[in-house]
Amino acid sequence: MAKKSKGVQVSFLGGVGEIGKNMTVIECGEDMIVVDMGVSFPKEDSPGMDAIIPDVTYIKQNIKKLRGIVLTHGHEDHIGAIPYYADVIKNTPVYGTALTIGLLRRKLDKDAKKCNLVIVDEGQTVQLGGIKVEFIKVAHSMAGACALAVYTQGGTVFVTGDFKIDNTPIDGKKTNLQRIAEIGAKGVTLMLGESTNVERRGSSTSERVVGQSLENIFNANPNKRLIIACFASSNYRVQQVLTLAHKYGRKVVLAGKSMKAMVDVASACGELHVPKGVIVDGIGKLKPGEALILATGSQGEPLSALNKLSKGEFNKINVGSDDVVVLSSSPIPGNEKSVYDVINALFRKGAEVIYDAMNDIHVSGHAYEEELKLMLTLVHPEFFMPVHGEYRHQYKHSQIAKMLGIPSKNIIIPNIGDCYGVTSKGIRKHANVPAGNTYVDGVVLEDGEALVSDRRSLAEYGMILVLAAVDLERGVVVGDVDVVARGFNLTDDGLRNIKNAVIDSINAADFDKADIDEYARFAKKAVRKLFARDRQFPIIIPVIVED
Amino acid sequence: MAKKSKGVQVSFLGGVGEIGKNMTVIECGEDMIVVDMGVSFPKEDSPGMDAIIPDVTYIKQNIKKLRGIVLTHGHEDHIGAIPYYADVIKNTPVYGTALTIGLLRRKLDKDAKKCNLVIVDEGQTVQLGGIKVEFIKVAHSMAGACALAVYTQGGTVFVTGDFKIDNTPIDGKKTNLQRIAEIGAKGVTLMLGESTNVERRGSSTSERVVGQSLENIFNANPNKRLIIACFASSNYRVQQVLTLAHKYGRKVVLAGKSMKAMVDVASACGELHVPKGVIVDGIGKLKPGEALILATGSQGEPLSALNKLSKGEFNKINVGSDDVVVLSSSPIPGNEKSVYDVINALFRKGAEVIYDAMNDIHVSGHAYEEELKLMLTLVHPEFFMPVHGEYRHQYKHSQIAKMLGIPSKNIIIPNIGDCYGVTSKGIRKHANVPAGNTYVDGVVLEDGEALVSDRRSLAEYGMILVLAAVDLERGVVVGDVDVVARGFNLTDDGLRNIKNAVIDSINAADFDKADIDEYARFAKKAVRKLFARDRQFPIIIPVIVED
Repeated sequence: MAKKSKGVQVSFLGGVGEIGKNMTVIECGEDMIVVDMGVSFPKEDSPGMDAIIPDVTYIKQNIKKLRGIVLTHGHEDHIGAIPYYADVIKNTPVYGTALTIGLLRRKLDKDAKKCNLVIVDEGQTVQLGGIKVEFIKVAHSMAGACALAVYTQGGTVFVTGDFKIDNTPIDGKKTNLQRIAEIGAKGVTLMLGESTNVERRGSSTSERVVGQSLENIFNANPNKRLIIACFASSNYRVQQVLTLAHKYGRKVVLAGKSMKAMVDVASACGELHVPKGVIVDGIGKLKPGEALILATGSQGEPLSALNKLSKGEFNKINVGSDDVVVLSSSPIPGNEKSVYDVINALFRKGAEVIYDAMNDIHVSGHAYEEELKLMLTLVHPEFFMPVHGEYRHQYKHSQIAKMLGIPSKNIIIPNIGDCYGVTSKGIRKHANVPAGNTYVDGVVLEDGEALVSDRRSLAEYGMILVLAAVDLERGVVVGDVDVVARGFNLTDDGLRNIKNAVIDSINAADFDKADIDEYARFAKKAVRKLFARDRQFPIIIPVIVED
Repeated sequence: MAKKSKGVQVSFLGGVGEIGKNMTVIECGEDMIVVDMGVSFPKEDSPGMDAIIPDVTYIKQNIKKLRGIVLTHGHEDHIGAIPYYADVIKNTPVYGTALTIGLLRRKLDKDAKKCNLVIVDEGQTVQLGGIKVEFIKVAHSMAGACALAVYTQGGTVFVTGDFKIDNTPIDGKKTNLQRIAEIGAKGVTLMLGESTNVERRGSSTSERVVGQSLENIFNANPNKRLIIACFASSNYRVQQVLTLAHKYGRKVVLAGKSMKAMVDVASACGELHVPKGVIVDGIGKLKPGEALILATGSQGEPLSALNKLSKGEFNKINVGSDDVVVLSSSPIPGNEKSVYDVINALFRKGAEVIYDAMNDIHVSGHAYEEELKLMLTLVHPEFFMPVHGEYRHQYKHSQIAKMLGIPSKNIIIPNIGDCYGVTSKGIRKHANVPAGNTYVDGVVLEDGEALVSDRRSLAEYGMILVLAAVDLERGVVVGDVDVVARGFNLTDDGLRNIKNAVIDSINAADFDKADIDEYARFAKKAVRKLFARDRQFPIIIPVIVED
């Protein structure tokens, strides 16, 4: 670990399994900015949690230096943590393009008033203390996405954010390669490049292709009702569906809160053009060929509109053989089971389901290998850090950077909690900063890690409660020991063994220092030992009462 | 529901999410046979369980009619339940090819003695009461796989089992298409066809291609140690690795119990040819270019050799930049996270990791769409039931059958527990048979469903224990209420509310009928109500003691 160097300093505060995605801090001298404040969604290894957000201890420690929060785009994994930290950042301006800020304002709800939300144009530069940040338009699966050029006394940091290179985007606004080339030509000290799709060869497909495939589906099914599910945040996808519905004389019912919210926000800020009269409140007396349901739930989310439709629990709509359901999406790793459960349920109801990525009904919003090469070539930074994605993605991205001529010693694969100082002389690792997962379960948890660990044990092994009454004077168990097991299969032998272990351990305990807590520890230890032999580790709760 | 018809009757007893895979019963008159008795491995929706096996109530009820158990091949999902039911089937002959029976014998261990295991040749027919079963060789990812022609008075049932059509198999033993065509020509009443890869277009790739890709890796890395992970059961894959190691002068260390077991069993029954001296006990002083580790764990299994290698916990072997690790596999849906965790860990250690299906280092053992069409065309059954796979696979397979000219009314997509009677006149659904999941957690559980449900609740919400002492005469709580929460985040307010709810509910309870159990129910109900408002459902355990 080196002392803090002059120059620019970058710290990675969040992103479960995907560094640099949720939250990154850039500092120079007495100025600090935060890039994105996103949320991650828990997988089976943190059961029952609502969300995982970055630890903001480091931000709190340096709140006096904090000049602004800059947002690359409006996806949950980039803005979703802000509502939890509204009180932390309420005095700090938050910058983003119109759609990003529009979505954030809606998320913040009443807290929006106390925050300082600032809309910037694509191409605009903002001054944050001694740091200047330029927002550069990039194509992505939603409008308003920007790469960031962060100009500091210590050099320029280029943050790609989520991007792809779509030369035929729906709104005509391409990734601004000219400007990126210019910035690269002037000299970029450090680039943070997203790595999500680095394993995919070639280049991604234009969003426009999805519209063509959807149009084929409209043409092939003039008398069927269409149910199309996609991410609400994919405003370009939503736009294409609305445009096609208008062209083919269908009325659109929006299904799902976030779909309605997105349509409201995106059309209010000009990123969505809703043909007049195309959206209606309900199916009413529309014939199948006149109706289209645009639904959330393309990831099989349990409470989503598509899931409810698949169970016949949405607005009394009965999905059946008159329906063609299109999942305009591909399952995010980890969601496969939920997605296929919904697809199976829809098939069982007799609907036709179109869900295969081979049907060109979905394209990714993230750059493939050749696009990543193009970005690296245009920016040609002195130092490079691959971010977003798992280690294997970062590794592959670093190999590509090497292939493009960036020296190995100038490429760093950072971890969450890492802090690096960059000067023209080189890159140095500083002492780690506080970082990691903060869990949300209804509220932001103080000690979520312990809670998650308990839940994992409970899920894996269940629990055993033992209840014993002890005569404290004699130090012996009085009467029977009660045992309650939940999520644990207790045999008659097991039950007997537990009772004996509790009685023996308590009766054998030393008189003098024995208090109730001490007896509880003895009993717990004895019971734990019984099961550890079989590599079973239920949570054991001893309840000792005074007789 | 119809009365039991004459003819042949088929019932589906097991297969978690994949019907007909683990266990199927075929009956005619007073004779019954069981096809396969396999195990499923639990996913996150049944945490902590070791295995899920079919319910054999129906077998027990009809044990007098049971003439034999016939096994299509030796994969766990087809034979793995037998050890749990050795006592149920100990008087019934179990038929399978040499490798299948060899693997089963090893699994049964001491119980093998009490079972009646019978080895059949590929092509052999066995008589089981009034039923004849012919074993027909099919290619698959392991040797000894057979389709079954089940000849009964009521007609012929053709069970494909797991298969692919590999015309250049490693052992030269192709799927016996001639014999299948003959059987089809004579007339098949009902076909049960596997559907695993029905979503994949075209035809599967020959196992031989993997050998070519592996050879390229041998050639490209003469001075690096090779670590190759694959399913132990994939004896053809193992064969190719051993052959290549011999050719390139490498010694092979087998890593993982099941790998060693497979090599033992498969070579004993002639399905694996181990070049003399190629297998050694340990790495010893071998240089990287002289060594190859053949490991289990291609699915990222936590206790597997590859996982231990990735953590430096296997035989003191230190994986690093001298290693090339090949995952000769593709992640089974649901295993992605574990697999990628291992890959990330190996990359972090500096190893090169080759894992992409695009590298042709893995091929599937299951027929693709065009192979399924060929099978249906050769068998051309009167009635067809797509089995194995989820509903979407069965549905797609049924569409293909229609395309091939089987009338819709002759195609049935069965569910687990379904029983169908088939005669030349038609197919009729009978009353369901007892079927479903039996859970194994160390032992076979009596009421696994309840246990799993408790564990899910514990994982999702945690638990709250309340302990109160009650003066039974006055019916009031004496002293403080103790509250213990595990896996549940209890706020100060929450704690206070719980205590009040317990005290109020008990104190307000009616005196006369109040006993301790009654008080416990009152307290539980009151606490549950507190949290249900916020849609939280922790498991609540009330402990009421007499003051």
